[in-house]
Amino acid sequence: MAVAWHTSISFVPPLYGIAISPKRFTYKLIVDSKEFGVNFLPFDEAELVASVGGSSGWEIDKFRQFNIARDKPVKTQVPILKAAYAAYECRLVDDRGYGDHQLVVGEIVAVHLLKEAFSPEETLDLAKVSPTLYLGSERYLTASSEAIKYLDREVYGKG
Amino acid sequence: MAVAWHTSISFVPPLYGIAISPKRFTYKLIVDSKEFGVNFLPFDEAELVASVGGSSGWEIDKFRQFNIARDKPVKTQVPILKAAYAAYECRLVDDRGYGDHQLVVGEIVAVHLLKEAFSPEETLDLAKVSPTLYLGSERYLTASSEAIKYLDREVYGKG
Repeated sequence: MAVAWHTSISFVPPLYGIAISPKRFTYKLIVDSKEFGVNFLPFDEAELVASVGGSSGWEIDKFRQFNIARDKPVKTQVPILKAAYAAYECRLVDDRGYGDHQLVVGEIVAVHLLKEAFSPEETLDLAKVSPTLYLGSERYLTASSEAIKYLDREVYGKG
Repeated sequence: MAVAWHTSISFVPPLYGIAISPKRFTYKLIVDSKEFGVNFLPFDEAELVASVGGSSGWEIDKFRQFNIARDKPVKTQVPILKAAYAAYECRLVDDRGYGDHQLVVGEIVAVHLLKEAFSPEETLDLAKVSPTLYLGSERYLTASSEAIKYLDREVYGKG
């Protein structure tokens, strides 16, 4: 599935959270398997994100329908996509209802990175990979690589 | 404070979640007041984000130190920033520890929008406002307004 609502939650242990409707096929997979994968896709794969977001695993096998290539996970059985510039393998640690969604929280037990896409500071190198961002209302975009501001908090925090 | 880890969680009721270290002064303010504001700032205010992120309310009054102008909240007493292109007033509904952070969840009870910054589809109009995005490691950037892809899930979901 495609998710728009997700965030890191903790450094130690490394936890990641995803807000997901309990109606989704993916939610059933997560509850049954107690694990999930998180894949970050480049902008030239935005069409795949829209395809996966616009179809349901209750009706079709998306891996077959959209011809999605997989890499092997190392600690779980979750899907890791070849097209991802970064991917997490997560083990479920919490699943809690908030309004019309469930917040699914997983511990990141393995990380897959396209190493050449990251800088020595461990941030994404935008000259190498443009990430897919979602604006809402079916609109996808990417980050601008032109105007990165380096703003040292130690300097700016002094005002 | 500046937060990098945050997400929408539910449509009905509208819930918003923020991962915050319990050591933060802001965390104490939220626990004591049972409410919090979320302000989204344009890229030309990224320096303010770095300033607020690099200093502590335990030590200084950031509103005074950084000369931060406020608008009036309508349903709470939370800080709404004049510079924000969007802001939420939230009432605390949950506060839960996950690893080294607390996930603070609030119901959005009022929304402040710079109306001219939004399109008829209710997405941010990037020709009018560039949002502040955080890449990590003190690096701030914005979204590219040049290559927005409109990818209708109804079309792409059919493969």
